[in-house]
Amino acid sequence: MDFLTIIDYVGTFAFAISGIRLASAKKFDWFGAYVVGFVTAVGGGTLRDILLGFTPFWMMQSSYLIVTGIALLCVILLGRYLIRMDNTIFIFDAIGLGLFTVVGIGKSLSAGFPIWVAVIMGTMTGAAGGVIRDILINEEPLIFRKDIYALACVFGGCIYFICTLLSIPTMGTQLLTALSVIGMRIFSAHYHWSLPTLNPQENIK
Amino acid sequence: MDFLTIIDYVGTFAFAISGIRLASAKKFDWFGAYVVGFVTAVGGGTLRDILLGFTPFWMMQSSYLIVTGIALLCVILLGRYLIRMDNTIFIFDAIGLGLFTVVGIGKSLSAGFPIWVAVIMGTMTGAAGGVIRDILINEEPLIFRKDIYALACVFGGCIYFICTLLSIPTMGTQLLTALSVIGMRIFSAHYHWSLPTLNPQENIK
Amino acid sequence: MDFLTIIDYVGTFAFAISGIRLASAKKFDWFGAYVVGFVTAVGGGTLRDILLGFTPFWMMQSSYLIVTGIALLCVILLGRYLIRMDNTIFIFDAIGLGLFTVVGIGKSLSAGFPIWVAVIMGTMTGAAGGVIRDILINEEPLIFRKDIYALACVFGGCIYFICTLLSIPTMGTQLLTALSVIGMRIFSAHYHWSLPTLNPQENIK
Repeated sequence: MDFLTIIDYVGTFAFAISGIRLASAKKFDWFGAYVVGFVTAVGGGTLRDILLGFTPFWMMQSSYLIVTGIALLCVILLGRYLIRMDNTIFIFDAIGLGLFTVVGIGKSLSAGFPIWVAVIMGTMTGAAGGVIRDILINEEPLIFRKDIYALACVFGGCIYFICTLLSIPTMGTQLLTALSVIGMRIFSAHYHWSLPTLNPQENIK
Repeated sequence: MDFLTIIDYVGTFAFAISGIRLASAKKFDWFGAYVVGFVTAVGGGTLRDILLGFTPFWMMQSSYLIVTGIALLCVILLGRYLIRMDNTIFIFDAIGLGLFTVVGIGKSLSAGFPIWVAVIMGTMTGAAGGVIRDILINEEPLIFRKDIYALACVFGGCIYFICTLLSIPTMGTQLLTALSVIGMRIFSAHYHWSLPTLNPQENIK
Repeated sequence: MDFLTIIDYVGTFAFAISGIRLASAKKFDWFGAYVVGFVTAVGGGTLRDILLGFTPFWMMQSSYLIVTGIALLCVILLGRYLIRMDNTIFIFDAIGLGLFTVVGIGKSLSAGFPIWVAVIMGTMTGAAGGVIRDILINEEPLIFRKDIYALACVFGGCIYFICTLLSIPTMGTQLLTALSVIGMRIFSAHYHWSLPTLNPQENIK
């Protein structure tokens, strides 16, 4: 098991935890919590694979199912104690976001799509799972209202694009991209950066 | 029209009825009720086909559209009288669940996927239509909170796996699987079996 | 840039505006509003392309992203002033609905699907974006409860079918179909036509 695989599982674990916790707040049962956790973890990559025309990645190996199962066990066993670990989970989540973005960009480019499609796919890989999670628990998607989250992926995508323009080798480009996403995510959360909202209009059709 | 086709239509009919009734509770118009009924009936199989890379099954023959139309007619004409038939519809629904699970497993295996993917696809074929229905009517998915429903499909999938291990012929395996799903669904509803829920945690990120 | 392309962008613009305004009513931030606007504009065609087995059309050219960006800018800059233009946007939306229906029907037929699949795909191209929009903003889909909207696409699809039966040349068929959709949409909105709703039933399973 190489370094990237470990990071992949760490990200999957953190994403699954976020889904399971929100599901538990809605009093979903274990099965429901497991499904929401799994969809949060693999939903973004699944949407990307469907749009690109690939077989969804989690259908190739059962590890994502297992990592989600471990996440469910942790929430069941550790329960409230997990709250003290919020900062750790936040870091795991940010690391996952960085890696997922890089994976999404790489997969799209190697399928022959232009860089702007790749940036969208990278962002989707990182952020769409959370949107599907919020749809399943019947809440307005969090990332549309709060924090810089998906935008951190877009920012990373731009860094990726600049790196290719500068002919930086792939390894370096990927590392810089992941670090940009992680850094942007952590900084924006720490300093409570957010985007402006639109003025609601009364007369909406 | 052979026996399996009839069961397929019976299941489609029961699933469509459940969608149309929930849509009518939300005061959807006839068109909305029809769409929700249709999506409830074919949504699970459609998701399966997209994930497996097939053309959705209902695009190959118009019978699913017609069965949904008949279901809509029944709800419009029979109205409240239909409530007295709740037990019959429940049995139809359970039979549909059993058949859909078997169909989903078989289609995945014949596409070359491993058994654990097939079990997921069988469960999805049976239970995902109801999740999409609940998303369309803007409710928290029922199967995540109540009853043993999707788990009956998972249970059937395990029976299928055991049957293949024991080299039971395909026909017998499929029959046993369907009966397990139907039996589990009926027993669990009768005895009000349900899974535990997670303790909600206050500080959710 | 030919005439059809201009109409395509006009429709995309109107659909994006409707998504962005509903997102702003939910206090989504700029990013969220952009995503909802984009999904409203391209969601129906994307669903169609996935079901037909094509690469989603907007991944082939960046113009749809740009048109959505312009729509976002308009809402930000013009704000409340845009409300006075409601009738213009309504006409744009109806024109887009007509074109999208024709495009969806044509693409399905040229992929070898029968006419009834093409009519569904045309309707989906026109109307599914609005359904996905309503799911993202966590509202019951508007088109299931109000007005003749998707039915205008179905009506156009029937006109298309009749035209092929009468061997009317493709150009004429497409024009007649688009005009039927646009006409039906405008008339039904003007005269407040709507479908009956079902009587809600108390005992819903």
